[in-house]
Amino acid sequence: MLRTQSAPRTLASQLPHVTPGETVTIQGWVHRRRSLAAVTFLILRDRSGLTQVVVKAPETVAQVAALGEETVVSVTATLVANGAAPGGVELVDPVVVPLTEPAHTPPVELWRPTLAAGLPTLLDHAPVTLRHPRRKAAWQIASASMQGFRRALTTDGFTEIQTPKLVGTSTESGANVFTVDYFGKPAYLAQSPQLYKQTLVGVFERVFEVGPVFRAEPHDTVRHIAEYVSLDAELGFIEDHRDVLAVLRGALAGMVSAVEELAADAVSLLDVRLPVVPEEIPVIHFSEALRLVGAPEDEPDLAPAHERALSAWAVEEHGSELLAVEGYPMRKRPFYTHPQPDDPQWSNSFDLLFRGLELTTGGQRLHRYTEYQAALGASGQSEEPYDGYLQAFRHGMPPHGGFAIGLERWVARLTGAENIREARLFPRDLNRLTP
Amino acid sequence: MLRTQSAPRTLASQLPHVTPGETVTIQGWVHRRRSLAAVTFLILRDRSGLTQVVVKAPETVAQVAALGEETVVSVTATLVANGAAPGGVELVDPVVVPLTEPAHTPPVELWRPTLAAGLPTLLDHAPVTLRHPRRKAAWQIASASMQGFRRALTTDGFTEIQTPKLVGTSTESGANVFTVDYFGKPAYLAQSPQLYKQTLVGVFERVFEVGPVFRAEPHDTVRHIAEYVSLDAELGFIEDHRDVLAVLRGALAGMVSAVEELAADAVSLLDVRLPVVPEEIPVIHFSEALRLVGAPEDEPDLAPAHERALSAWAVEEHGSELLAVEGYPMRKRPFYTHPQPDDPQWSNSFDLLFRGLELTTGGQRLHRYTEYQAALGASGQSEEPYDGYLQAFRHGMPPHGGFAIGLERWVARLTGAENIREARLFPRDLNRLTP
Repeated sequence: MLRTQSAPRTLASQLPHVTPGETVTIQGWVHRRRSLAAVTFLILRDRSGLTQVVVKAPETVAQVAALGEETVVSVTATLVANGAAPGGVELVDPVVVPLTEPAHTPPVELWRPTLAAGLPTLLDHAPVTLRHPRRKAAWQIASASMQGFRRALTTDGFTEIQTPKLVGTSTESGANVFTVDYFGKPAYLAQSPQLYKQTLVGVFERVFEVGPVFRAEPHDTVRHIAEYVSLDAELGFIEDHRDVLAVLRGALAGMVSAVEELAADAVSLLDVRLPVVPEEIPVIHFSEALRLVGAPEDEPDLAPAHERALSAWAVEEHGSELLAVEGYPMRKRPFYTHPQPDDPQWSNSFDLLFRGLELTTGGQRLHRYTEYQAALGASGQSEEPYDGYLQAFRHGMPPHGGFAIGLERWVARLTGAENIREARLFPRDLNRLTP
Repeated sequence: MLRTQSAPRTLASQLPHVTPGETVTIQGWVHRRRSLAAVTFLILRDRSGLTQVVVKAPETVAQVAALGEETVVSVTATLVANGAAPGGVELVDPVVVPLTEPAHTPPVELWRPTLAAGLPTLLDHAPVTLRHPRRKAAWQIASASMQGFRRALTTDGFTEIQTPKLVGTSTESGANVFTVDYFGKPAYLAQSPQLYKQTLVGVFERVFEVGPVFRAEPHDTVRHIAEYVSLDAELGFIEDHRDVLAVLRGALAGMVSAVEELAADAVSLLDVRLPVVPEEIPVIHFSEALRLVGAPEDEPDLAPAHERALSAWAVEEHGSELLAVEGYPMRKRPFYTHPQPDDPQWSNSFDLLFRGLELTTGGQRLHRYTEYQAALGASGQSEEPYDGYLQAFRHGMPPHGGFAIGLERWVARLTGAENIREARLFPRDLNRLTP
């Protein structure tokens, strides 16, 4: 088969390194056109950024006038220096070749610095509105965060796992679970890889997973979505939950470095202030936290106002935007939670607060078979649906623990998004299943 | 809170670097015990390998006799050189501290070089049988392959995406789709990220995803599972499907290097022969392939015997275990397939054969809105269920294409597994939803 050889493509980000006077070919979307009396400025957008093309030839001006925003074109032109243009260069005397049909006018003007539309409109038209540099940037931070998470844990001896999303029993919390028609029988969508990641500590000792989890959240709020990406880790041979917190610290530091390194433009565009992850995350016990915020000592949980006060305290006292609250009451934690050895009303688990809100939960799990039998019995559950899980404990499991970070929650916190839907490509909720 | 400080742990793999005579603490599972008249050999397994511990003190011999295989213990002992032991070292004069209760006897003897049980037994007891070095090794190859895939594509300017697994319409193929009760309405589990990855080429140009896909396969065969991991990529601004093949080549080369580098022990244990990925994968046209194998020229597909013959031909003719067959008949390809420009009975798509079997399918897609309208019309489908997808094309999409590699299929091919279930941690099929 014969292949037509076109000129090699140069990306917008490479143009500042091209010698002025050279001819280059760039390809991308018509981001914006500005027609003045004697000249049309064509702004082309590719994956690396924007390029200004100066159009003067009347037939090209007419051609560009007929190619609406978002049309995909190839432009071959001469590079010249222009301090006022993006990257200090622009292209002149262009030959414009459309690579597709003229695009329909986008539902929202993508060339404006911020998108002038409500969130429902942005989500209804996500295939197009995600092209806006600000929306795209939020996901670039997500993408870099996943890389950083994996890199930190892989370096630390963790094995990546992929656990089933189709499960036979709705465990952990019977509510909020999606039911699947599984060859005529009911199955469920996994709400987390919790039971499987613990099981696999028995195989690989240290495991992580980055994948979807599903929650049939009946609430339509800015914090709830029905499907999100969970960054899960679990490790064996720990002393207690403090070892888990140390690994979480490393994962967060890796995520921040990766965002700095791989999504620098997104960070700058969205004016993200990345946290400094301290060498050791400060820890306060739940009972001490209650005293500090002046709450009754039998409160089973921290109220949002308490979390904000504790974060403010951590900044003042420890210079840290991250604070771990350990020892949450056992009665508020799931059945596999390990109690605090010296006072079993408390647990060897923690919540990590970041800028006034809970970012993630982690802790030590039970590891003895007889403890699981007792815990399931105490919570009124039968062992049978947990049979696969309990196999691991019957046949020897080390002391272990882990944590899970919600990717979208992390990104929303960094970008200051008010709605978690802004941190996901195609969110799903009570009312939204498309696009 | 006071923390008991135990001695720092040394991994089995680090022991050869310890000076003989030093005291070390290792932790892991009792892999095997061999009792001779005057001595008991305790083989301990941790994530890095096996360690031989020589037990002579009568009370320790008695203690070890009571701790069954798979019990998790901590052993503090003196390191000595012994050329006959694993890694050339062994531990003597041990103090053994159990870290959990004595383990129940495993359903299959994990210390034997190969697992003496049928696949159903291995899968029923996966939480324990995955601990066998050979089963573990297969997943280590999978894990390394995922890393290699991501590394190759990230280096090549691709952005990692996470697309929804809960979708509103059962597209691509109406059969084999799982239905979910989505807040009282029907939703479906995504059979692939195909439509979303194409859409996101409009945002990021080059995207990849590693995640679960779901197929309600009604066939109980060695090749079908209901959930597997798909390694997907899609890229814009291509000339045709040959550009897609070049990226696939790079991804495969990256996967092979990562397996060599990160799973060397697994490769050696399973006696895996990794393929040499040629700089350019040889390509043969479908019509030529039919002639070569002596099939009638109106055959719409290649039979398994044809695929084997073609692979043998590629080894002989090109010295390559990989062969791309391009130009498959349009009538056998999905509606979004781009025809071969000079003869539209053929397509700009390919199958990649590896050692006699199809490994992956890829190709160029349509990119014009009017082409999609025509293709959907020709296949008798309405545009409405594809509304989100079609938005991308209405508003400008570059020529693009992509491919998908089934992770388990790749691993099964490398390890020589006869059943794809051996390449997955917890497989799901017509009859299996647990553990």
